[in-house]
Amino acid sequence: MPKSVLVIHGGCGAIPKAELTPEINRAAREALTLALRTGYRILESGGSALDAVTEAVVILENDPVFNAGYGAALNRNGLHELDSSVMDGALGLAGAVAGARRIRNPVRVARELAKVSDPLLLIGEAADSWAAKHGFELVDNSYFTTPSRQEALARMLAREEGDDLSPAPERDKHGTVGAAALDLHGHLAAATSTGGYTAKPAGRVGDTPIIGAGTWADDRTCALSGTGKGELFIRRALGHEVHARMLYGGASLEQATGEMIAEMTALSGGAGLIAVDRDGNVALPFNTEGMYRGWISAQGVYVAVHED
Amino acid sequence: MPKSVLVIHGGCGAIPKAELTPEINRAAREALTLALRTGYRILESGGSALDAVTEAVVILENDPVFNAGYGAALNRNGLHELDSSVMDGALGLAGAVAGARRIRNPVRVARELAKVSDPLLLIGEAADSWAAKHGFELVDNSYFTTPSRQEALARMLAREEGDDLSPAPERDKHGTVGAAALDLHGHLAAATSTGGYTAKPAGRVGDTPIIGAGTWADDRTCALSGTGKGELFIRRALGHEVHARMLYGGASLEQATGEMIAEMTALSGGAGLIAVDRDGNVALPFNTEGMYRGWISAQGVYVAVHED
Repeated sequence: MPKSVLVIHGGCGAIPKAELTPEINRAAREALTLALRTGYRILESGGSALDAVTEAVVILENDPVFNAGYGAALNRNGLHELDSSVMDGALGLAGAVAGARRIRNPVRVARELAKVSDPLLLIGEAADSWAAKHGFELVDNSYFTTPSRQEALARMLAREEGDDLSPAPERDKHGTVGAAALDLHGHLAAATSTGGYTAKPAGRVGDTPIIGAGTWADDRTCALSGTGKGELFIRRALGHEVHARMLYGGASLEQATGEMIAEMTALSGGAGLIAVDRDGNVALPFNTEGMYRGWISAQGVYVAVHED
Repeated sequence: MPKSVLVIHGGCGAIPKAELTPEINRAAREALTLALRTGYRILESGGSALDAVTEAVVILENDPVFNAGYGAALNRNGLHELDSSVMDGALGLAGAVAGARRIRNPVRVARELAKVSDPLLLIGEAADSWAAKHGFELVDNSYFTTPSRQEALARMLAREEGDDLSPAPERDKHGTVGAAALDLHGHLAAATSTGGYTAKPAGRVGDTPIIGAGTWADDRTCALSGTGKGELFIRRALGHEVHARMLYGGASLEQATGEMIAEMTALSGGAGLIAVDRDGNVALPFNTEGMYRGWISAQGVYVAVHED
C-alpha cells in the first residue's frame, strides 16, 4: 500500500542539553514540526518527494534557530557563504549551489537546477546571478546575520587566538538542515542546506552541495541528508556509500546508516544522518550530544533534540 | 612482488580521426609519453602514487593541446574557470579546487589541500588567494588562453545563435586530463584537472573537483579519473560507484569501469575512464570517437588517441 514519509534534521550541532531552556526547546520543536507538516501536506496530496523535501527545508532555512539561510553561520571574514543541494531518486536528477551569498532560499535554486541538471552545480556570484535571472529572491548578505551567529564568530576567533582553550562547541562546528522523503508514487528525494561552520575559511565548501556526500537519493534504496564534519563525508562519499551498502551489500537502512556513523566516530568526526528507504523505514543516527530531528507519517509526528 | 603502474588520459574530447594530422598526432603522443615518464620516474624511485599522478597531470596542464591549465577551455564569458582534485587511496585524503581563475597548476594546489584535507574543497577567488598564501604561482587569467580555444568559443557561440546546427564536437564538450597510479608501497592515488567545456556557463562546476564523481582512490579497490559529461558523472557518483561495484559487488576493474561507460552511453553521455586496481591491472574504456590515453609499467609504454 502506498505510504508517504518525511524525515528531517536541523543539524547535529544542537544546543547542549544543559543549556537548552524550555523556551529554546519549544521554539526548535515548533519549527521542526512546522517543517514536517509543511512537507507532509505536499506528500499527502499526491505531491512529489522532491517538492516535499524542498519546502520542508525552506521552513528551516527561514528559521534563525538553524544554520541555513536566515541565521546561517558566518565565515571567518564575517560573510555568509551558503551551500545546498537536492536529489530526486526517480531519475537521479540533482541540483546544487555552493558559496552563494545572496540567494534567500538556496534550496529552491538547487531544486530549479535539478529540473534539467545541466548545469547541475553553480558556485559563488554566478550562482546568485543565475538565481536572479530565474526569478529567485536575492537579499543582501547581511540579511542572513543574527546576533547569535555574530557572537559565535567572536567566540571562535577568540578561541583561535588562544584566549579560550576549550574545544569548539558542536553547534559552532556542525549546523545544517535537511530532509528526505518517500512519496505516494514510490519515489524518494533528499535536500540539504547549510551555512557551513562558524569561522570557516572563505571559499570552503563541505559535503552539503556534493551529490553522493551530504545528499543522495535513489528509488532502489534510500534518500538521505547528512550533517557533521563535511570533509569526512566527502572523503567517504558517505551518501553514496550508504546506498551502495544497501544495493550491493544487502544492508538494511538502519545497518548502513549506523555503520557510517560508527565510521565517522572512529575518525573523530561529529556526524548525523536522516534517511528513509523505499519501504518507508526511517533512520536518524548521530554521534553528537544532540541532533535536531523528526519524522512524520501515517503513524504520527516525532521530534527530538537530544537522546530522550 | 611490488610493481608500479601509471595510467593517464588527456580527455575523451580527442580530435576526430579525419582531422588528426601527423603533426598533431605526434605532439599529443609526445606529451602523453612525457607525462607518463615523468610520473613513472617518481614511482620507480619509491615515490608515492599521489606525487606521481600530480606531476603527470602538471605536464598535461602545462601543454596547450589539453583542456586543463594552459590551453584550458573558455567559459561563455570568455574566462577560464579551472577545477581539479586529487585523492590518496591509503588514507582517503583528498583535496580540490573549483572555479579557480589564477592558479597556474590547479592540481598542485589540490595536492597541497590533500595534506590535511581540512578544508578539502575551496572555490573561486578564495582558492586563488589560498594558493598564493601557500606559495603557489598565480598568473593572469589570460595566461591560460590559446587561439585554438578562442576559435572554439566563437564556434560554440555561433552554433547557439543558430548559424550552425551541427552537433558540438566532442573536443569542445569534453576535455579533461587525469592520472591514476599504483606505487611500490601498494598505494593508489588519482588526480584530475580541467577547464570544463567550451562556453560553459559562468560558475558551472562539473565532476572533476568532486571526490566520488570524477576522481576516486581507495587502496582496497582502485584509483580512477574520469572525462566526459560531468553532470552525469555526478548524478551516478561514477567514481565511487566503480569502487562499490568492486568492493561489494565483486566486479573486476574491467567489468566495473565498462559497466559505467555503458551506463553513460545509455544516457547519451560522452565518457571515458582511466583506472588502475590494487593488482596493477589497468582499464581505459571510453564511448567517444577517441580519448587521449596511455599507461606505463615494467611492461612498457602505451599511448593512443583513437581505437587503433
